[in-house]
Amino acid sequence: MKSNIIILILLLFSISLRAQIPTTNEEDEKVVRSIFDESLIDGRCYERLRTLCKDIGPRLSGSVGAIRAVEWAVQEMEQLGFDTVYKQACMVPHWERGEKEYVAAHSASMEKPLQLKACALGYSLGTPPEGIKGKIVKVTGLEEVEAMTPNELKGKIVYYSRPMDPTHIQTFHAYGGCVDQRSRGGITAQKKGAIGVIVRSMGLRIDDYPHTGTMDYGGELPDIPSCAISTKASEDLNALLEKDPDVELEMRMNCRRLEDKLSYNVIGEVWGSEHPDEYIVVGGHLDCWDNAEGAHDDGAGVVQSIEVLHLFKTLGLKNKHTLRAVLFMNEENGTRGARKYAEEAKTKNEKHVVAIESDSGGFVPRGFNVDGTDEAVPQMLKQIGGWEALLEPYNLHRYKKGFGGVDINFLKDQQVPLVGFYPDPQRYFDIHHTELDVFEQINRRELVLGAASIASLVYLIDTYGFGFTPAYKAVEKVPKG
Amino acid sequence: MKSNIIILILLLFSISLRAQIPTTNEEDEKVVRSIFDESLIDGRCYERLRTLCKDIGPRLSGSVGAIRAVEWAVQEMEQLGFDTVYKQACMVPHWERGEKEYVAAHSASMEKPLQLKACALGYSLGTPPEGIKGKIVKVTGLEEVEAMTPNELKGKIVYYSRPMDPTHIQTFHAYGGCVDQRSRGGITAQKKGAIGVIVRSMGLRIDDYPHTGTMDYGGELPDIPSCAISTKASEDLNALLEKDPDVELEMRMNCRRLEDKLSYNVIGEVWGSEHPDEYIVVGGHLDCWDNAEGAHDDGAGVVQSIEVLHLFKTLGLKNKHTLRAVLFMNEENGTRGARKYAEEAKTKNEKHVVAIESDSGGFVPRGFNVDGTDEAVPQMLKQIGGWEALLEPYNLHRYKKGFGGVDINFLKDQQVPLVGFYPDPQRYFDIHHTELDVFEQINRRELVLGAASIASLVYLIDTYGFGFTPAYKAVEKVPKG
Repeated sequence: MKSNIIILILLLFSISLRAQIPTTNEEDEKVVRSIFDESLIDGRCYERLRTLCKDIGPRLSGSVGAIRAVEWAVQEMEQLGFDTVYKQACMVPHWERGEKEYVAAHSASMEKPLQLKACALGYSLGTPPEGIKGKIVKVTGLEEVEAMTPNELKGKIVYYSRPMDPTHIQTFHAYGGCVDQRSRGGITAQKKGAIGVIVRSMGLRIDDYPHTGTMDYGGELPDIPSCAISTKASEDLNALLEKDPDVELEMRMNCRRLEDKLSYNVIGEVWGSEHPDEYIVVGGHLDCWDNAEGAHDDGAGVVQSIEVLHLFKTLGLKNKHTLRAVLFMNEENGTRGARKYAEEAKTKNEKHVVAIESDSGGFVPRGFNVDGTDEAVPQMLKQIGGWEALLEPYNLHRYKKGFGGVDINFLKDQQVPLVGFYPDPQRYFDIHHTELDVFEQINRRELVLGAASIASLVYLIDTYGFGFTPAYKAVEKVPKG
Repeated sequence: MKSNIIILILLLFSISLRAQIPTTNEEDEKVVRSIFDESLIDGRCYERLRTLCKDIGPRLSGSVGAIRAVEWAVQEMEQLGFDTVYKQACMVPHWERGEKEYVAAHSASMEKPLQLKACALGYSLGTPPEGIKGKIVKVTGLEEVEAMTPNELKGKIVYYSRPMDPTHIQTFHAYGGCVDQRSRGGITAQKKGAIGVIVRSMGLRIDDYPHTGTMDYGGELPDIPSCAISTKASEDLNALLEKDPDVELEMRMNCRRLEDKLSYNVIGEVWGSEHPDEYIVVGGHLDCWDNAEGAHDDGAGVVQSIEVLHLFKTLGLKNKHTLRAVLFMNEENGTRGARKYAEEAKTKNEKHVVAIESDSGGFVPRGFNVDGTDEAVPQMLKQIGGWEALLEPYNLHRYKKGFGGVDINFLKDQQVPLVGFYPDPQRYFDIHHTELDVFEQINRRELVLGAASIASLVYLIDTYGFGFTPAYKAVEKVPKG
């Protein structure tokens, strides 16, 4: 009997543990409903994104487009009547693609060279005007190159050919499993004497749109020209190499690195009624690659972040904490804006209740990733799970530990709870960093549902808090010296 | 103490209730993984759909396209080596649109008539060659017309203008809230003396693509011409009527009703090893509207149904029950194929373990609707919930009571457990029944993930059963006389 009583106590205890999850009420249900209704009927995300994509367009850091995007963002948020809008200065890299790249494979088995659709990787050096030419060495990963002897690749062009693994349901994992070829392929090949690098595009579809992207993850930049070829070009080249292992590659690119330029994060705030000096950040990045309109990456995140604050104002929701839309500069090739934001937050000892990023496309919402300290994540998941009944009617089902976002990740060491908005990931790498990433790829309903999903989470976090004691208190506890 | 013990017993009882959910094991996890891998890497759905859309194309019941689709389906399943492939004959309606419709609004406020993008509704009669013309009476629903006196609409043209409600997250509910205007608007207006009907298209986007659809839901067919106008045309017409309430509408359509024709459901089977005379049905409909390729509606369901059986064969999964891919004819305008299938199933006293339909588009999978008797549904939801850990890694999160599908719904009174595949619903009514429903709208990954999702559910149901004792046993128990 005694053991039964113990079991009983344990069971009741487990029930009482559940009861600790903040309870929500009918009022919350109504607020969430009003956020979705407003967003679906009158939400302005879509028109805002049209302006950003069509009137401004490409806006790589350092470009005229980026300057115009900064001006537009300031004006847009001022017009919406946010309590304050300001710019946060940072120096950003400046790189230009120049004229259209020419990449072709030469083989004795063909009368004419096989032209491969290609685009320079960000930061790549160009070739001399007459181009370069070298024998192709096909590899499937960095390890193969690293295992080579010094100078083994002398005068050659390395072809990184590993495709993304289509069996990952989470396509970002497939990307993560391949992207080292793009980010560190150049420097790795250069160290073995290679004169150039081509990389199979990071895309899941076989098509003729090359995907650009940055090479700076490792910190070291190669001095040899590097470009991506389309997945179709990669398939064609693979077939050619089967027939003729002595294929030569010709590359002509006139991209160039320029002096760093002054640029800005753009920040808008709607002040909190109870804790104006505690911040809920919602962000996306303002810059995008030069070959696209940056509709999904990350115009969607930009306009959704602005919309979250706009929804609070329009609906007259009195946020207790200050809401901050942070439009980061330079996510694509340097993350200088994100570093700057985190640095200033640290210097000013700012208290962040949460930082939320939308940088996975404007696709239909599915849920949220949460990230933070090992202690905080289970608590965050428990809380967000407690809100499931409120969010599930809006097809928000997935709450997992996962990556928050490239920009907000710099706040992680300040122990800020991080949330990554998680839209459906299946189509993202069809358009990512290609000329296909244009406004027409966006579905209005999916975009505005995203804004409403994030706004609803912000409302719940503003009302009930999130995770444990925020960063600045934990920092205070660190013993000095 | 006694009350505590009672609580304890209740708690333990609730635990033991949970334990009744069929348990799954590592083997199941591997099988589901293999189904998704095979489908993502080598699945042939997408190429199959290309053939159906591009080589056959429009295939409304009674058309040459429908005949060719039947032949293609038989051949396709025979080539895949199914154990048997056969046709099930049924008579289907035959209707032709004829030449492009002309619909225009005339107002003294405009120099030229305002042409409205329009398409005849299925089954509509045409107009005389010179067209018809009448004053527009704008209404927002059937009730308004029903409340009118006899002959109040004499010589007039009724304009049903109620838009779909965008705040429904489940877009099919928004459709359900409007579609009576299309299905019964004609007959209702005719009874009050109207000479024609126009209906705002059942779409959530404002664009210039009219959505066709059938009028036969009520059973009675109007003898006055009826057409849908695009949502943009509807907005334009609303604006015009604000300025000038005396707008006249001109309609010219030469569509016509013809004699019923012989057509077929196409059925393929992979026989079960233990219960060959018990059936798991996976179906979609082979017909589609004449103005489209029927990619999402319902080419997707057709190729996914075939693929489910193909995956079982390819992976060497030994199904215990017989798997049946049922490609229904005439879902769009008469459901004669579905009625025929249900009728024969009843006559032959066939035992159906489950019937699953995919007819909500080839979009990214989210889960399943279940339907059946009041007793069976909670049991089905409990079972499917017990499989959540297996299905959740594939982003299948939503399992709810809901509609199974138009075709399988005819099996409901035989107490067959019904399952509706539930892909994301946000984009469906952008393309539904319009010329936009073409192959290019389909994303390969989303389509093949759908096939794998359904195949995984079929595998689990084949292994563990579904719902209660199937229909034929319940029927046997009914007292005779």
